[in-house]
Amino acid sequence: MEKTKAIELMETCEAAYLTTIDEKGFPRTRAMLNLKNKKQYPSLAKLFKENNKDFTLYFTTNTSSTKVKHIEKNPKVCIYYCKQNEWHGLMLNGVIELVKDNEIKKKIWQKNWDMYYPGGVNDADYAVLRFKPAYIKGYFKFEQYELKLND
Amino acid sequence: MEKTKAIELMETCEAAYLTTIDEKGFPRTRAMLNLKNKKQYPSLAKLFKENNKDFTLYFTTNTSSTKVKHIEKNPKVCIYYCKQNEWHGLMLNGVIELVKDNEIKKKIWQKNWDMYYPGGVNDADYAVLRFKPAYIKGYFKFEQYELKLND
Repeated sequence: MEKTKAIELMETCEAAYLTTIDEKGFPRTRAMLNLKNKKQYPSLAKLFKENNKDFTLYFTTNTSSTKVKHIEKNPKVCIYYCKQNEWHGLMLNGVIELVKDNEIKKKIWQKNWDMYYPGGVNDADYAVLRFKPAYIKGYFKFEQYELKLND
Repeated sequence: MEKTKAIELMETCEAAYLTTIDEKGFPRTRAMLNLKNKKQYPSLAKLFKENNKDFTLYFTTNTSSTKVKHIEKNPKVCIYYCKQNEWHGLMLNGVIELVKDNEIKKKIWQKNWDMYYPGGVNDADYAVLRFKPAYIKGYFKFEQYELKLND
């Protein structure tokens, strides 16, 4: 039940918030495209369902970005989804890594992303990040819940 | 100009996101009441204007909460504000501390908070946190900006 609610939240949020840790030990948060949003990225729903790993997440970013520098030194991150008007939040802890597999990068590529990466799917600045969860906590109204990981 | 936009964002967001670092070194994010929201907390606008410290922030929480435990061990945090539909985000790094000054705790207290803290303003579980910024970065559409701190 809680797992269903958590997945529904991830699949409908406009954005996901990724927090990395910088070189001085400060956490840094920024909004990311939420590729798990089914309405915005219908073609990616299949990827997320593969192997039934509901909480393995993918994000796109620029290889040259600050967050990639942070992750290379410290892969511990937080992903957060939130609908403020529903008082519903989901916090995932885990590690994140740069995806080297070109097949996955191609699967994730969206046709209008040329505006971000003019060189297309092979643009050196097109990066994909894969997040694997270690701990998940949900906040719903005044209740908190922890999700057991089976993947 | 950028400072004006940043303050306007903080004063109109529904929530603020606070990220602490847990005992295992993972960042953890959760939504907080945004006391800087002028419409929701008109009586607090004066407090935030005192001494012209635009980016000193206050939050309320439970003394018994996990975030207080994190902060006691590691005061380095991130505060993040975001309006997804405007592609506008503001990221503040700095340190946060428990406020011991009862006068400030009384100034911040809102009359309907008995539902969170049945003992009222003197409830041992009513905690106020004060954040002092060290670094501020804004994201607006495809641009990023850094704000100089003069307070």
